[in-house]
Amino acid sequence: MSPPRPGDEGVGPPTAVTGRRTPTTQATVFAMNNGVLVGKNDRLAIEEPLEIRLLVAESVSTISITMRTPGNDFELVAGFLLSEGVIGSREQIHEIAYCLDGEPDATQRYNVVTARLVGAPGRASIERLVMTSSACGICGSASIEAVHLAGHPELETGPVVPFDVLSTFPDVLRSGQAAFSETGGVHGIGLFNQAGEMLCIREDVGRHNAVDKVLGWAMLEGRLPLSESILMVSGRVSFEIVQKALQAGVPIVAAVSAATSLAVGLAENVGMTLVGFLRGSNGVIYSNRQRIGTSSSRQ
Amino acid sequence: MSPPRPGDEGVGPPTAVTGRRTPTTQATVFAMNNGVLVGKNDRLAIEEPLEIRLLVAESVSTISITMRTPGNDFELVAGFLLSEGVIGSREQIHEIAYCLDGEPDATQRYNVVTARLVGAPGRASIERLVMTSSACGICGSASIEAVHLAGHPELETGPVVPFDVLSTFPDVLRSGQAAFSETGGVHGIGLFNQAGEMLCIREDVGRHNAVDKVLGWAMLEGRLPLSESILMVSGRVSFEIVQKALQAGVPIVAAVSAATSLAVGLAENVGMTLVGFLRGSNGVIYSNRQRIGTSSSRQ
Repeated sequence: MSPPRPGDEGVGPPTAVTGRRTPTTQATVFAMNNGVLVGKNDRLAIEEPLEIRLLVAESVSTISITMRTPGNDFELVAGFLLSEGVIGSREQIHEIAYCLDGEPDATQRYNVVTARLVGAPGRASIERLVMTSSACGICGSASIEAVHLAGHPELETGPVVPFDVLSTFPDVLRSGQAAFSETGGVHGIGLFNQAGEMLCIREDVGRHNAVDKVLGWAMLEGRLPLSESILMVSGRVSFEIVQKALQAGVPIVAAVSAATSLAVGLAENVGMTLVGFLRGSNGVIYSNRQRIGTSSSRQ
Repeated sequence: MSPPRPGDEGVGPPTAVTGRRTPTTQATVFAMNNGVLVGKNDRLAIEEPLEIRLLVAESVSTISITMRTPGNDFELVAGFLLSEGVIGSREQIHEIAYCLDGEPDATQRYNVVTARLVGAPGRASIERLVMTSSACGICGSASIEAVHLAGHPELETGPVVPFDVLSTFPDVLRSGQAAFSETGGVHGIGLFNQAGEMLCIREDVGRHNAVDKVLGWAMLEGRLPLSESILMVSGRVSFEIVQKALQAGVPIVAAVSAATSLAVGLAENVGMTLVGFLRGSNGVIYSNRQRIGTSSSRQ
């Protein structure tokens, strides 16, 4: 008989699910502070997939796999069911629990939530959400594994880009963001070469769309693989951004803001250089720093 | 015989699709500047759905509907196919064009792109992406219409919140963002009452997840509908955020950054008050300003 699982209590007060998983994790990074590179411990926001399953009349459907920060998972599922129009009140929830069927192993236990409803939800609302099975995997490491299984270009060793060059990218990107200047409401993605020239810039309300536009431009221009290029992101870097850059062979991704745990994990795993918090003469090198040239330790 | 359509040229150089649609649009808003409310013209980033269809052996599948900013749509589709692992090179694309089958009407013409590949892509890569048909509609107005058809709570007239109270929310939200303080890498969503008290705060790498967590908390606490509450967003407001808030009956959504065109359109349409760029004593009221009390024109 299996031991009691924390999920077995079903829907409870928020405190029952608050704090079970920490939302951040520790990582060793290299910080560039005014030209000096120092190793230090940093905190990353955890990004992990959550699979939401709906149990209706003994039939289980996966209605969403979302990349989320662990914690308050039952609230997330309840809110998702509400905000996507599957249910309209708490009374329609019979139970929300982790891994009802005991199928996921220990590492995945808290990344699969099943909701059992009272009665059947509107058929239309379910059909809209039900997806065919996703290969994205369940736990974070499974996601990284899935990227390997799906296949991707090998990243080449080069290039090496001096940090001084990299640090000019945010201003160049910003000055090219026409729609941002007008609205303050879009993400910008730039593609740079080692000399610091911006080859392409695209903007979009969706960060992943702006990345796709830049990569699509490069492909239509016959520039793949982008083994000598740097992708510059106006905001944060999630798993999805690293995954997309990888498919185009981009060896260096730089960003103005933070990277998530799963973005760093994938970048490390595939040999991609990931740089965040690129501001002025400062920045954080999350992975594969051999591609970043520094005056103190040019490599 | 129908006239030639711009999409008929298929994949071309980026200039062929650049600038066909503007990425921003004009809107009339009310700006609060140090206590003075003035009407003005503003620019909003356009957010509209793009349906990506894949044509394989005379069979058409919708593989993605993404909320994007119009422009560079063929690049977006090419990049999506690449970055999601459907294809690996430009040679695998036979044609990318708007509305090949002539089905969408004029308003939707530039929101449906069909890609015809050379040969068949990997079955696994397609199965992972193919979704059952989505009710989210095609053009922006269809999206708003779909929200009405799907049903949602009627927003109540009240409350009226003084702008002075609203302007305190960003600092309160920020001071409650524990994971952001550690990482700089997560969104924060707060639920406030009219008195300016924060009832709930949740953080997540995905903004929509943080919203779902807050709404899920409210539902599990028996607080629905949230007809007296204000949802405060640490970043930007997209269509999805307004749609989710609506399902919980939230009458006022406020944000530190910009709102998209479709977010404003939906908020106007359903009677929701939407406030952006809430910074210090300034802010932009996008819709239904009757719920915002101002010292000069308290209503």
